[in-house]
Amino acid sequence: MKTYRKEIWFDTPHRRDFINITSQVEQCLAESGVKEGLCLVNAMHITASVFINDDESGLHHDFEVWLEKLAPEKPYSQYRHNNSREGCCAGEDNADAHLKRTIMGREVVVAITKGKLDFGPWEQIFYGEFDGRRKKRVLVKIIGE
Amino acid sequence: MKTYRKEIWFDTPHRRDFINITSQVEQCLAESGVKEGLCLVNAMHITASVFINDDESGLHHDFEVWLEKLAPEKPYSQYRHNNSREGCCAGEDNADAHLKRTIMGREVVVAITKGKLDFGPWEQIFYGEFDGRRKKRVLVKIIGE
Amino acid sequence: MKTYRKEIWFDTPHRRDFINITSQVEQCLAESGVKEGLCLVNAMHITASVFINDDESGLHHDFEVWLEKLAPEKPYSQYRHNNSREGCCAGEDNADAHLKRTIMGREVVVAITKGKLDFGPWEQIFYGEFDGRRKKRVLVKIIGE
Repeated sequence: MKTYRKEIWFDTPHRRDFINITSQVEQCLAESGVKEGLCLVNAMHITASVFINDDESGLHHDFEVWLEKLAPEKPYSQYRHNNSREGCCAGEDNADAHLKRTIMGREVVVAITKGKLDFGPWEQIFYGEFDGRRKKRVLVKIIGE
Repeated sequence: MKTYRKEIWFDTPHRRDFINITSQVEQCLAESGVKEGLCLVNAMHITASVFINDDESGLHHDFEVWLEKLAPEKPYSQYRHNNSREGCCAGEDNADAHLKRTIMGREVVVAITKGKLDFGPWEQIFYGEFDGRRKKRVLVKIIGE
Repeated sequence: MKTYRKEIWFDTPHRRDFINITSQVEQCLAESGVKEGLCLVNAMHITASVFINDDESGLHHDFEVWLEKLAPEKPYSQYRHNNSREGCCAGEDNADAHLKRTIMGREVVVAITKGKLDFGPWEQIFYGEFDGRRKKRVLVKIIGE
């Protein structure tokens, strides 16, 4: 069995962003030499997401509006996480980012067949950032042969 | 390591539908000959879902009502995706289907133990269609030994 | 290829609860002897969740409030699942638990690297119970070498 691991780093200029990382994952797959197996791609941070959907800017706008409706950023005071004084969370304002990432998902698992990501016609992998303007990363782990 | 791949095709008569595919996935597992490993089942289309829940018609009705509340189909004009004129999306009316599938999830990963899907008492695998009346498919990928 | 399987059991005193199971999964990984591979952790019940997020009590309170807003427990009569008279579901009151678990997710897949769960700085694995006060369980399945 072969295994492969790589981190992909981000530092988005905005609080929220969607970034197509399909070609970077394909490059990982090429480097791995795996022809048949599984590819896990997950956010390593709990206010970010990895998901599969369409690379269409209108849809990404719809996601932004929809997530703000389901889990609004403001007022910050509506979330106890933002008012907590314990440990990591003193002075946080990112409770909504934890909720938005929960909707969008932490990870995807993609089949590898004949050395390719085994995708349907419109499937693309995205990094979803919900609390950006800092360095964060995604893990790519591949197993197979 | 053994690997196995199969596509399961659908052409649902309605825009939205839930279809129990557990027995089809079990048949894939039997064909694979894998006794210990992992089974990935994912929608290959971005307006459909694969998820695990109960095979109970009342619950499926509740899912339909709930998803319409969280991500209503109409009015179509509320979504920019439906009004986009670029690429794949000219004249689309399925933005809600992308959102509904996000709630329900793209994929499940199921453990394989002693040649069986390693399920709790009520777990069943469903295909969730949110933009049907066309040919679409699910991928089953199995790895193990 | 090595494989490993274990069930972790719960019997929560409340209807809803979040329990950090990271150390239990780490113990499974140590027992498995796997150094490189994938670890699947999934709820075996369809009214419970396994998810990754922050171990912060303010955030957990926010999750509780948010899930009640998106999928309220009461009135029970709003859900057809609760009024069904077929099979498993006669007299159920847990339709909301099926919906809440859908938001939070059934499973996580975690990379294993150098014998450790390959986590970002704040990632912790939680069991999310939405219909407790009974014995329920989580499956840990590890494959790799």
